[in-house]
Amino acid sequence: MSQERIGLWLIGAWGGVSTTVAVGLAGLQAGVAPETALVTSLPKFTRLNLADWSQFVIGGHEIRETTYAAEAEVLYNNSRVFDRDLLNAVAPRLAEFDKNVRPGTLINVGATIEKFAGPKTLAFRGEKPADAIKRIRTDIEEFRKANDCSRVIVVYLSSTEPPLTSNADTLSWSKLSAALASGDNSLVPASTIYAIAAFESGCAFVNFTPSVGSNLPALEEFALQQKSLHVGRDGKTGETLMKAVLAPMFAARNLKVMSWVGHNIFGNMDGKVLDDPINKANKVRSKDHLLTEILGYKPQTLVSIEYIESMGDWKTAWDHIHFEGFLGTKMAMQFTWQGCDSLLAAPLVLDLVRLTEREQRRGKSGVMSHLAAFFKSPMGTHAPEFAKQFIVLEQWTDEVASEG
Amino acid sequence: MSQERIGLWLIGAWGGVSTTVAVGLAGLQAGVAPETALVTSLPKFTRLNLADWSQFVIGGHEIRETTYAAEAEVLYNNSRVFDRDLLNAVAPRLAEFDKNVRPGTLINVGATIEKFAGPKTLAFRGEKPADAIKRIRTDIEEFRKANDCSRVIVVYLSSTEPPLTSNADTLSWSKLSAALASGDNSLVPASTIYAIAAFESGCAFVNFTPSVGSNLPALEEFALQQKSLHVGRDGKTGETLMKAVLAPMFAARNLKVMSWVGHNIFGNMDGKVLDDPINKANKVRSKDHLLTEILGYKPQTLVSIEYIESMGDWKTAWDHIHFEGFLGTKMAMQFTWQGCDSLLAAPLVLDLVRLTEREQRRGKSGVMSHLAAFFKSPMGTHAPEFAKQFIVLEQWTDEVASEG
Amino acid sequence: MSQERIGLWLIGAWGGVSTTVAVGLAGLQAGVAPETALVTSLPKFTRLNLADWSQFVIGGHEIRETTYAAEAEVLYNNSRVFDRDLLNAVAPRLAEFDKNVRPGTLINVGATIEKFAGPKTLAFRGEKPADAIKRIRTDIEEFRKANDCSRVIVVYLSSTEPPLTSNADTLSWSKLSAALASGDNSLVPASTIYAIAAFESGCAFVNFTPSVGSNLPALEEFALQQKSLHVGRDGKTGETLMKAVLAPMFAARNLKVMSWVGHNIFGNMDGKVLDDPINKANKVRSKDHLLTEILGYKPQTLVSIEYIESMGDWKTAWDHIHFEGFLGTKMAMQFTWQGCDSLLAAPLVLDLVRLTEREQRRGKSGVMSHLAAFFKSPMGTHAPEFAKQFIVLEQWTDEVASEG
Amino acid sequence: MSQERIGLWLIGAWGGVSTTVAVGLAGLQAGVAPETALVTSLPKFTRLNLADWSQFVIGGHEIRETTYAAEAEVLYNNSRVFDRDLLNAVAPRLAEFDKNVRPGTLINVGATIEKFAGPKTLAFRGEKPADAIKRIRTDIEEFRKANDCSRVIVVYLSSTEPPLTSNADTLSWSKLSAALASGDNSLVPASTIYAIAAFESGCAFVNFTPSVGSNLPALEEFALQQKSLHVGRDGKTGETLMKAVLAPMFAARNLKVMSWVGHNIFGNMDGKVLDDPINKANKVRSKDHLLTEILGYKPQTLVSIEYIESMGDWKTAWDHIHFEGFLGTKMAMQFTWQGCDSLLAAPLVLDLVRLTEREQRRGKSGVMSHLAAFFKSPMGTHAPEFAKQFIVLEQWTDEVASEG
Repeated sequence: MSQERIGLWLIGAWGGVSTTVAVGLAGLQAGVAPETALVTSLPKFTRLNLADWSQFVIGGHEIRETTYAAEAEVLYNNSRVFDRDLLNAVAPRLAEFDKNVRPGTLINVGATIEKFAGPKTLAFRGEKPADAIKRIRTDIEEFRKANDCSRVIVVYLSSTEPPLTSNADTLSWSKLSAALASGDNSLVPASTIYAIAAFESGCAFVNFTPSVGSNLPALEEFALQQKSLHVGRDGKTGETLMKAVLAPMFAARNLKVMSWVGHNIFGNMDGKVLDDPINKANKVRSKDHLLTEILGYKPQTLVSIEYIESMGDWKTAWDHIHFEGFLGTKMAMQFTWQGCDSLLAAPLVLDLVRLTEREQRRGKSGVMSHLAAFFKSPMGTHAPEFAKQFIVLEQWTDEVASEG
Repeated sequence: MSQERIGLWLIGAWGGVSTTVAVGLAGLQAGVAPETALVTSLPKFTRLNLADWSQFVIGGHEIRETTYAAEAEVLYNNSRVFDRDLLNAVAPRLAEFDKNVRPGTLINVGATIEKFAGPKTLAFRGEKPADAIKRIRTDIEEFRKANDCSRVIVVYLSSTEPPLTSNADTLSWSKLSAALASGDNSLVPASTIYAIAAFESGCAFVNFTPSVGSNLPALEEFALQQKSLHVGRDGKTGETLMKAVLAPMFAARNLKVMSWVGHNIFGNMDGKVLDDPINKANKVRSKDHLLTEILGYKPQTLVSIEYIESMGDWKTAWDHIHFEGFLGTKMAMQFTWQGCDSLLAAPLVLDLVRLTEREQRRGKSGVMSHLAAFFKSPMGTHAPEFAKQFIVLEQWTDEVASEG
Repeated sequence: MSQERIGLWLIGAWGGVSTTVAVGLAGLQAGVAPETALVTSLPKFTRLNLADWSQFVIGGHEIRETTYAAEAEVLYNNSRVFDRDLLNAVAPRLAEFDKNVRPGTLINVGATIEKFAGPKTLAFRGEKPADAIKRIRTDIEEFRKANDCSRVIVVYLSSTEPPLTSNADTLSWSKLSAALASGDNSLVPASTIYAIAAFESGCAFVNFTPSVGSNLPALEEFALQQKSLHVGRDGKTGETLMKAVLAPMFAARNLKVMSWVGHNIFGNMDGKVLDDPINKANKVRSKDHLLTEILGYKPQTLVSIEYIESMGDWKTAWDHIHFEGFLGTKMAMQFTWQGCDSLLAAPLVLDLVRLTEREQRRGKSGVMSHLAAFFKSPMGTHAPEFAKQFIVLEQWTDEVASEG
Repeated sequence: MSQERIGLWLIGAWGGVSTTVAVGLAGLQAGVAPETALVTSLPKFTRLNLADWSQFVIGGHEIRETTYAAEAEVLYNNSRVFDRDLLNAVAPRLAEFDKNVRPGTLINVGATIEKFAGPKTLAFRGEKPADAIKRIRTDIEEFRKANDCSRVIVVYLSSTEPPLTSNADTLSWSKLSAALASGDNSLVPASTIYAIAAFESGCAFVNFTPSVGSNLPALEEFALQQKSLHVGRDGKTGETLMKAVLAPMFAARNLKVMSWVGHNIFGNMDGKVLDDPINKANKVRSKDHLLTEILGYKPQTLVSIEYIESMGDWKTAWDHIHFEGFLGTKMAMQFTWQGCDSLLAAPLVLDLVRLTEREQRRGKSGVMSHLAAFFKSPMGTHAPEFAKQFIVLEQWTDEVASEG
């Protein structure tokens, strides 16, 4: 295994998921965190010769002003996660990561997200897309140089933006880049600005949120041109993961799903942002489409996501699946999922970074469709069943391993 | 598609599942039942050229004395399943099926099951294994002849027997058959007696229960010798199906299952039999082993099955899955499954019969391991994940279809 | 017990609850229905000398055009309630009841409800309040005369209207009645029109819905003037009943309810009407207020009511109660309630009618606050705990019984 | 309020509940713990002039050898309860309490409990009842003297003993005391030994467990003779509390409960002891009887309590209530209760101590039946409904307050 240094650049760097990524990575580097929940730590991936945790260093962009220690304390107190001993052990490393965080951009993040911005970010309010891209790119490149990184992977973890309303999804890269250069402020949201900056710097871009990011024809074109890797969209951590696991069973058994109702409650900052109906629309869309894809027909569906402050980072989902069995018999399955959102997401982020880094070493570029098992709305594929997505990942592993 | 007649010989012919099989088949033949819940009615199996519902005729063995109409009425009243119009439509056909039912055997069924036996069956109490086999075989062959069937498939649907206590699982067919011929009454239970009779008659044997049936080395030997097909054990209809669907997700995500508790309540006759701890032991074993197989380690597990009279045929399972996520965070998933047992099982029986009949036409013999997706403890395979089992079925379908 | 005839006049006469009231009453009269779920059939109410089921006859107003038999069939098919034998037994009696149903009024019922109106009701569209009151009153009085009823009790069971938007709740009866006489069409909704007509005819008025009905100062004044009894508002059948039962426990144990989330799904016509946000607002308000009253502080609450067609009349509620225990420990209780809405409501309607009739015999008038146990938003009282409400009913029973 | 010192003598002094009592009391004394979950901190009890938290000092008996700090750490790590800051704040006070703990007695505690005994307790193994009583009494009296306590309240919190098998419940105090004096080792279990010692010392005895304690005619006689107060049996903290709250609703609504199934899983030391079927029998009996008392008939019931190690102190109960509504319609309510056992029990212990101390000041003796709301099997009363039990407590409060 190479002992090169690898940069992990987090957008939304002090959010709940990023904070957990930082605590977890620091814990793994210090040898005080178990590898539970890390997919890439399963024995079947050993032969991939993945990067070691010790090789990674964290930096990122963030619109708020805080520290990893302060954000970890919030999670610790509100949600009773982490361990005091772990937090003590990783404190010095977190303080180093803090120094690598730079102010983010507010371009088209929406009013709800903008309210969280601190003075350093607000200083850039109203900047033009081209200026933002240049600034972000400079930040990443300085980080890469200062930390002597062979490669940097940019991971988008910011709160969900409002859905895209422009025609950016119909434009070629030449049209889109020209419009941005001309100062068009309305065309793409922050997540896409970051993706462009990442590709310009030759970095990979992983979009763990429902925001659009690099999921535009123009960006796919630009990624190939830059020989950059990218993948997304919206990490599959809880209720939707369950849908991707359970719906194929109903399909395979020819049980007719009449309705599938899902209610999600949680109380972290992501929840506050999703309490804005505009931002929520983006999220609900991402959670709802796959049932029709898996079943081959559209049952009545309902997905609600509600901010309930007392829940903290604990997301509880109740799903009621009403299905027709043999001879018209109506039956039901219900489940409740009680998971801690940041703790479910963070290990997947670390997995994605390791798997992306491996693909970088292979010299690949474009969409990494073999990573579909990690996403609610996977790019580059139409196979929504979780089990089949995982088989694709195993096949990719076979292929990589066979390269020696 | 061939218009040959095919016999469907049910052991436990007037039980809840068999009654639902009879009502369903008659409804399908009359064109008044939808094909929901029939796996073989999925578009992907069309190219298999499966037998048409109209080709099947039902007969069987049973230790109680009743009729399909009476048993259907019990389900209708206690469990609010079926439809009055459907029952009226199929009544004449059910009455024909009734005429094909013969008294069963009580050899080693256990005291709890024996209590349900009617006078016609009790008349054979104490019969020797060889006599029982001969009698059963004669019944099946008379039925085949009377109904002009090209093929007969024997499906074992009786209540769960006590676990095997003899050394029958260590014997070769020559040893076992010699012992039975010599009148050894303690060696094998009724389910195996029926399997032997089926193979002697050249029929296929499908074991939809946890009872041992043909799942013995000696029987596997004998099936090959007789060029008979067989498969089993214990139809996967509810909670265990969920385990086979959900556990692979926990494994794939490296989430550590600490405990998996499952409580099942239901109130049908099967439940009454399972209220006897000896019979229950057989069932619990069948429901519990696959978690360890899928996860690769043994979490603490608990499976309870309780007879609650008011539930009728509605089996409600509550499962509590306690798992450890990233950085030692304990999370939980709970589900409740509210399904009607006989209505979940019956379509799978019809599927198995059709798929077995297709394999008979191919001239195959031995264990049909490609049918693992239907069983809790599938014979001839060690792959317990439902999604992978279904892929095996699809691959078999490709193979058969390619034969033209 | 007197053998006088008593009229039961249902507004929304062919709706789900009314149909179940009719089927149930006819079944009780025919001696083929058990008294389960009838509060007034509990032994403790025997000494009240309540009216016998045989004394009641049903009539009512309805905006749709159908029959009891047809509506009962819908419930039977969609929701698997009732029994074919019961429906056969009561069919002739239901046909008699059908003859007593008259077209309703559409005054301020809202656009969603208006869509269901049939031609006979549409013929009166745009009628003035005074004309509607006169017409309704005539219908009731003709029914009373034709059936030789000593007393008539009007029960309001129509779908939920939009909330009151006028200033009718600030007016005296003289002001309100003058405005209605002058043709003011915007002042009060249909439910109040019916209440006025009931009081004018000297009938009692029971409002089983969240609509305003007689719950206005002016109407309370008028009821006393007419010596009429009345009570309401919104029958307490499921989730809110649970709140009135569970919340007092949290209060008594000083467990701090941080949030109480309730999601309701169901698929009957009431659900279709509540799918209109204007009508739903009225319902949600009625379900939400009592937590603050019982706990003495306002936890975060969420109540959703969603129309899910496949559920039919089966209302499933999932409630998640998040509470803080000793030393800041967050705990949770969840419940799911799977009840059949019309079957839960109908026996309470029959109870209310019997209890109102008994109070009529005592010569009482005004609001029957002792019936609070039956309502989500009880009139004439501020005691929201179910157990205390039931004690009030028992105390009233003691009082009535002591009168001999 | 008097500033006398009051002793709180815990039997099972280092168990989970006792440890939480100690942490909580120390936290209240230090002003760093909120009063949530303390019934006696509700405004309605202010006028009782209850003792102040500062007046209490803790001692007790225990068969294991550990410390409060160590046991609190176990709860903190396994169950994520308490707060590091709280534990730090109370550490010195806990160390003082530790010094007041003395070795317990093993008389008839059963083999499962005996396994936990440390050397100091084992030194007394085989002691005669009279010697044990004398030793325990001496311990309590030395504690009272050393801490200058006006009053001592003994609270029994040890793990559940096997049920009583002797005829002790048929004996008078003179017979029972004579037999114990004569060295009869088989007559009563440890819980009764402690109760006798408490009464001999003129202390009150509160039994928070299902063990027999003072719930024997002989002991009730002796308590009166000694002018001692006592009460019990088995604190009502979770599933049974729910039964006492919910079952009265089913009764009041004449909904026929057909079956009530309850499954409890948890992983604390209490759970390990209940894993022994002999000890469990005592507990299940205590949880099951009240349904019949409340409903007036016996539905089919099932109560299981299972030790699931991963749950730690978190007790999760799933209850399935199957009931018949109007016209034979079967409906269901399910609930899951996720509570932390020790944190639910401890505040009730503190409440009972304060309420007992108040009754001591009134000069009362005998069974405190007005405290039924706190117990699964309340002594001195047959009213099992929680709401009515709480009204009795309020009435007692009125009475005490009226004494000035």
